[in-house]
Amino acid sequence: MNRELPIGIFDSGVGGLTVYRALHAALPNEHFVYLGDTARIPYGTKSLATVERYAVENSRFLDTRGIKLLVVACNTASALALPAIRKCVGVDVIGVIEPGANAAVAATTKGRIGVIATEATVQSGAYSKAIARLDKNAQVIETACPLFVSLAEEGWADSDEARSIAAKYLKDIKQSDVDTLVLGCTHYPILRSVIQETLGKEVRLIDSGEATALYVVTMLETKDLARRDGGEAAGVARERRLCDDLDHFYVTDAAARFARVAERFLGSAPSSLEAVEIWGQDELCAK
Amino acid sequence: MNRELPIGIFDSGVGGLTVYRALHAALPNEHFVYLGDTARIPYGTKSLATVERYAVENSRFLDTRGIKLLVVACNTASALALPAIRKCVGVDVIGVIEPGANAAVAATTKGRIGVIATEATVQSGAYSKAIARLDKNAQVIETACPLFVSLAEEGWADSDEARSIAAKYLKDIKQSDVDTLVLGCTHYPILRSVIQETLGKEVRLIDSGEATALYVVTMLETKDLARRDGGEAAGVARERRLCDDLDHFYVTDAAARFARVAERFLGSAPSSLEAVEIWGQDELCAK
Repeated sequence: MNRELPIGIFDSGVGGLTVYRALHAALPNEHFVYLGDTARIPYGTKSLATVERYAVENSRFLDTRGIKLLVVACNTASALALPAIRKCVGVDVIGVIEPGANAAVAATTKGRIGVIATEATVQSGAYSKAIARLDKNAQVIETACPLFVSLAEEGWADSDEARSIAAKYLKDIKQSDVDTLVLGCTHYPILRSVIQETLGKEVRLIDSGEATALYVVTMLETKDLARRDGGEAAGVARERRLCDDLDHFYVTDAAARFARVAERFLGSAPSSLEAVEIWGQDELCAK
Repeated sequence: MNRELPIGIFDSGVGGLTVYRALHAALPNEHFVYLGDTARIPYGTKSLATVERYAVENSRFLDTRGIKLLVVACNTASALALPAIRKCVGVDVIGVIEPGANAAVAATTKGRIGVIATEATVQSGAYSKAIARLDKNAQVIETACPLFVSLAEEGWADSDEARSIAAKYLKDIKQSDVDTLVLGCTHYPILRSVIQETLGKEVRLIDSGEATALYVVTMLETKDLARRDGGEAAGVARERRLCDDLDHFYVTDAAARFARVAERFLGSAPSSLEAVEIWGQDELCAK
């Protein structure tokens, strides 16, 4: 595997940019290629079969463009579609559930963990199962918070409405006395401060995207796949902006809207953004 | 055309059930076949090309099943895709924009009309153009209210959060002193009472679905396509429940969720609900 290749990231839309941000911060020497499936967003209310089909098409698309590793930023796709994706691409595939669960188990002291995610992720029980594999005594309470996505995309993360909606969604989790909460949807880190305020500062928030980025750092090192930057070799500190032209962004629809929300999430819009069609890629998949 | 055939209704998902409800109330003798494109919802944040493609696939699907008329319940599809749909089906196609605009022009006394809709519908300017065709002096102010969709689907139509979000979205419209407001997205009638309360009871709310149902009544009569019910002919009042087994519902994904939200919107879930795949129907379309 060529270590100069970019890391592929796919998401159902714009939410995965929080995972891109985390990867970018943890891996300043790497280049990224991001696919947001904005034509078919959201995945969180869709069925297993449909999420699998979309996820495989997206993964094949990035794989054929040349990547050294695929990060599935979307929690729903990570929860439902990793086995299907792994059958269809030639690179290692990393979802956000396992690293998120791992970080939560590491962080909890009381063994009481809350998880907030999309309806599909909650229904799949993916986080509960991943946590149980790591600590069978841990108690997990999961809740879907669908309105958080719109609040984040509207730029209302810091509003009275967000606070009020958070209080409603997180009521049961708060009462169940968790000490750790997994932000199990890529949009939720945008509402991080409201969530923290609602649950109190003693509750530890786990951003699955950040946990995944740290996992990828280790994995690249152990597989000797990390990119060695010229600048770094010469002892020059590397400076990289989010969304600069070393990273390429694909969307399946509505590029202008993607750029607008990207600016809201990251503070800058992608320099290199391209709209593509990816339907029917799953026919290429050898079962 | 066989007047016994059902009326076809398609929507991007569950929101069109408010249009189904209006049609059902206005046309108790008719049978309906409804397609909710739940695999690809929402349309309101997607581009023209994508909305056209989805709309044509849905319309072809219903047309090949045998309908006497097609109602495009989705405002976004009505705003963007009617010309493309009309090229590809053999029946009359009625969108919700023109009837909604018509009712608004009829209702306004000051000629100041507000329109709330999805981002795509607002961007298309479809309501403004339709209103201008009817009354070139009318003043129109349009605003997108994306969070209303999630609030309706969550069952939070009557909550403090809905009131607060409505106050925010409707601020400019309220200040612009409109006397009529078009509910230009199928979900918005679910929040009708909150919207009315926010703007004050002197503002007339126009439900485009209801306006469309009244238009369809007239159209069926003038085309001699209305179904004559045996009971009605014998002078027996017809009783029909919403969602009974005379109406058939198709969804492209997540039937269980559709049934749950249908119950929330209509008070009863469909008796006859079927999941289908409709991808690739547009290849059948003769340009």
